[in-house]
Amino acid sequence: MDKLAVEHLNDSNYCFPLDEHHLKIRLRTKKGDDIKSVTCLWNVLQYMYLTQIKAPMEIAYVDEYYAYYECVLYSKDPRFSYVFYIITNDGTALYFSELGFTKEYDFSWFYLTSFRLPYINPIDVVFDNKMFSGDVFYQIFPERFNIGDFSKDKNYINRPWDTSNLKGSNGNRVQDSFIGGDLKGIELKLDYLKDLGVNTIYLTPIFKSQSNHKYDVDDYFKVDEMFGKDEDLLDLVKEIHKHGQKIVLDIVFNHSAFNNNLFQDVVKNGKKSKYYDFYIVNGDKPDFKKKNYATFGDVPNMPKLNSNSFDEHDYFVEVGKYFINKFNIDGYRLDVANEASHTFWQRFKYELRKIKPDIILIGECWNNAISYLSRNEFDSVMNYPFLYTCKDFYINHFLDAEHFSYRLNSLLMRYKDGNNRMMLNLLDSHDTERFYNLCKPNKDLCLLAFLTLISYIGWPMIYYGDEIFMEGGTDPFNRKGMEWNSKEFGLKENILFKKIVHLRNNELFKTGDIKIYNENSLFVIERYKKEEKVKIVINNSEKSVKYAVNGMVILSNNYDNGVLNNYSFIVFK
Amino acid sequence: MDKLAVEHLNDSNYCFPLDEHHLKIRLRTKKGDDIKSVTCLWNVLQYMYLTQIKAPMEIAYVDEYYAYYECVLYSKDPRFSYVFYIITNDGTALYFSELGFTKEYDFSWFYLTSFRLPYINPIDVVFDNKMFSGDVFYQIFPERFNIGDFSKDKNYINRPWDTSNLKGSNGNRVQDSFIGGDLKGIELKLDYLKDLGVNTIYLTPIFKSQSNHKYDVDDYFKVDEMFGKDEDLLDLVKEIHKHGQKIVLDIVFNHSAFNNNLFQDVVKNGKKSKYYDFYIVNGDKPDFKKKNYATFGDVPNMPKLNSNSFDEHDYFVEVGKYFINKFNIDGYRLDVANEASHTFWQRFKYELRKIKPDIILIGECWNNAISYLSRNEFDSVMNYPFLYTCKDFYINHFLDAEHFSYRLNSLLMRYKDGNNRMMLNLLDSHDTERFYNLCKPNKDLCLLAFLTLISYIGWPMIYYGDEIFMEGGTDPFNRKGMEWNSKEFGLKENILFKKIVHLRNNELFKTGDIKIYNENSLFVIERYKKEEKVKIVINNSEKSVKYAVNGMVILSNNYDNGVLNNYSFIVFK
Repeated sequence: MDKLAVEHLNDSNYCFPLDEHHLKIRLRTKKGDDIKSVTCLWNVLQYMYLTQIKAPMEIAYVDEYYAYYECVLYSKDPRFSYVFYIITNDGTALYFSELGFTKEYDFSWFYLTSFRLPYINPIDVVFDNKMFSGDVFYQIFPERFNIGDFSKDKNYINRPWDTSNLKGSNGNRVQDSFIGGDLKGIELKLDYLKDLGVNTIYLTPIFKSQSNHKYDVDDYFKVDEMFGKDEDLLDLVKEIHKHGQKIVLDIVFNHSAFNNNLFQDVVKNGKKSKYYDFYIVNGDKPDFKKKNYATFGDVPNMPKLNSNSFDEHDYFVEVGKYFINKFNIDGYRLDVANEASHTFWQRFKYELRKIKPDIILIGECWNNAISYLSRNEFDSVMNYPFLYTCKDFYINHFLDAEHFSYRLNSLLMRYKDGNNRMMLNLLDSHDTERFYNLCKPNKDLCLLAFLTLISYIGWPMIYYGDEIFMEGGTDPFNRKGMEWNSKEFGLKENILFKKIVHLRNNELFKTGDIKIYNENSLFVIERYKKEEKVKIVINNSEKSVKYAVNGMVILSNNYDNGVLNNYSFIVFK
Repeated sequence: MDKLAVEHLNDSNYCFPLDEHHLKIRLRTKKGDDIKSVTCLWNVLQYMYLTQIKAPMEIAYVDEYYAYYECVLYSKDPRFSYVFYIITNDGTALYFSELGFTKEYDFSWFYLTSFRLPYINPIDVVFDNKMFSGDVFYQIFPERFNIGDFSKDKNYINRPWDTSNLKGSNGNRVQDSFIGGDLKGIELKLDYLKDLGVNTIYLTPIFKSQSNHKYDVDDYFKVDEMFGKDEDLLDLVKEIHKHGQKIVLDIVFNHSAFNNNLFQDVVKNGKKSKYYDFYIVNGDKPDFKKKNYATFGDVPNMPKLNSNSFDEHDYFVEVGKYFINKFNIDGYRLDVANEASHTFWQRFKYELRKIKPDIILIGECWNNAISYLSRNEFDSVMNYPFLYTCKDFYINHFLDAEHFSYRLNSLLMRYKDGNNRMMLNLLDSHDTERFYNLCKPNKDLCLLAFLTLISYIGWPMIYYGDEIFMEGGTDPFNRKGMEWNSKEFGLKENILFKKIVHLRNNELFKTGDIKIYNENSLFVIERYKKEEKVKIVINNSEKSVKYAVNGMVILSNNYDNGVLNNYSFIVFK
């Protein structure tokens, strides 16, 4: 047995409550190791020295190197003590505790040397937020989605809706091109989105700002005039809720615009400004030319906010509360969240939970985000690792079906179950090349990736226009005006896209557990609950593969007579 | 190379800032693996795709199975991106990134697939608290330390000071025996403690309570009458500060007494009480006989507090602030801290930092406590794993010097450097058998353990009476009256104990880095800073061992003519 491959840690992604009384335990071992059985020996704290309950553990996930054993413990008294008992194929028995591996384990010392989850406090439990359970998200870049306010002053619009000329001309910077999308425009499309199968709408920033993307905010308490007035946001939220949908706003607390009212006060008053500590300034007054202040990246127009200041925390907690209290929004996506302090986010979550217990916070973290994903910080992060893993399978062919399944299982094992159920999974966004751009002209291939997105556990996010296979490279080409006149509407691939999204009407896709593996070079996802299950089988290759289906077909593409053709799939139960 | 043994995680004990600009990186590999070199390839975020700085990594610690490579990165811009580059002895080169092991690594994808520490925010950095750096702590159980108030009403005292009859007689429970120690008594002994080498005094609870231990609190805002009045605590804190010492109070937010004013309000008013949510009651009113409420362990006299309630948080934050604002205390030890919610402790630390940035919080966590040891929760925990590891070496002989060093290195690798510098290391406490009780009559052996405690990185804690080799099994025998008339005072072992404590006057013992290993079956600790170092060599056996010393001897016991006799040590530089 390979002792060096074995991993466990209490109060982590290896040991986490599912609710007030259930505790999930994971143990990592070498894949294919000569292990006969793994048992979790446990009890509630005060009885552990007397007797131990035996919980058999089973392999739930495998990746390239490791097998992950799991079991779920139930106890009314939520004070857990446990050790592992491993029997190898040659009959050797070993205990694994905080002492490491031992041949014997003295249970009279359990208090010191067993693993423990001292107490399940519900306020700390990362669980699936019922308000958003299995939701389909739709990301909108408001300037580019739809015009709804036909009476507004259109002087700021400097490009036609359907332009592909989004930068360079007239000396304008990328962020200075405007085609006129607004909040009313989104409101007009809520029926469309409902029909598409969207539950939650996520808007990139709508705060007062001079750019089209509005990630450089001038005033955190104002809705940008280009997009509408407070009333328009109020109306939009009301209509979204009437549609049974939810709305998530994008907020940017890592940096503001140079023109932000707070920063301008510092520019004017230097250290005398009560906002001086909100930024990180070297000297008295910030100077655009000298760039004597911390910035987002190297961008002097985006001075970095100082999340090490208690006063700064107070201010942005108020911002967070304002849009909940006044507009009744349902969650926030937090821009460049990983560059602000944990201390701030913990305070932010705490104060927002007090006024809206179901609030969701989705961090922009591009990497392993476990350190942010406690109940007390973010509920979710944008799952970019899912994105690049899909690219490596569907586009780059760095991975075959076997290694694709290993990589996805690896990603699942980074986090607690509750985190996985709330990951914001995506294939593209305003920050990446559109996925179809990588697939074109192969729409079937693109559909396989979106089927993977919809089938995977968590929240699938569609970027506006994905459903009509909009093309576009990186910024600004991924931010073109929504092609409402596209010929794609109603074509079979668009209809199939919608059908794929509507798979989420099935409770198994929303809240089922997940297994990921490969079968004869085909990639397979299973979603299941107790006896019920649905199986998604994907052929991501140019070859046809025989595949016999035992069950009721729910959806398929190019599956004929027991053969999964190239770039085809079948969903059945 | 054993890929399965390799471990790294961003923003964890494998990657943590030392200050605003220095980042410590660790990589775990198999010990003795065929690795030629490990290099950390890194840069600040915006330049990583262009070029990478090479930081060679060296093995800093080894335990039974693993070698831990470390390096420290410095950057003015605190946004770090990094991957590992490993060359094996046969010349094979591998990259290790968030993708796992790969033969090639595409740096144009660094944003997604490299490891990252997105930004060092000072407010999150776990660093050595300068106020307490390398402090020697002394734990006092006030009822049993010293009587100072000679004018008080002594009617409550029901045992002579020097009794060993601390339970059972007259139908009294263990906790109902009183010998009369008080706050004034401690004040009278501050010179004694200063002379012993104590920097920080930690008192078990002093809040109003009916027991001798006072862990069942009746009123959180009152000093217990047996110990004194508010004025006495004010005087004590002032005198402690005058002595250049600090004071840490023990607070109990996991549970209160049944007689606590808050709980009694619930007993009286049930759900109508504004404190109803402060507890976890099944039904309207708590009933002692039915025990229809959550408790600490199975003790009906200690109803568990509900750290899932925001109102409860507010109340106990006020308690925490009260003793800082009114009495100017320097820190808290948090009883049964691991059973209260992370959410509460984060809030608690946040609010206390605001009014006293240097405040220290020491959690009672008996196991791996990494999930509590961010800057935003506890600074420190009582290091019980250190205690039982020392027992396994000095008392049980389960470990030889080699495996003792491995186990201590393992413990160090659980945490960030800053955590290790603030661990409250101990050999005994009011909750365990006294260490000398396990060694008796071998004082030399006991001294070796205390030398280990003083030499180890972190805060060594002496339990009152350890310095005079007080005996005592578990509660109540570990809580006997301090033996001020002991014949041990001034004997050579007592003098040596003091000399060992005074090693902490040496800056290397306070703030030096640490190496732990064995040399010819001798256990060795090195404390060092750049060129300077001190070496502590311990012979924990019945045999004499030849050991030549090159250097200046600072302290030794039974070291003669190049021979370390049985149970002896030498400290030299």
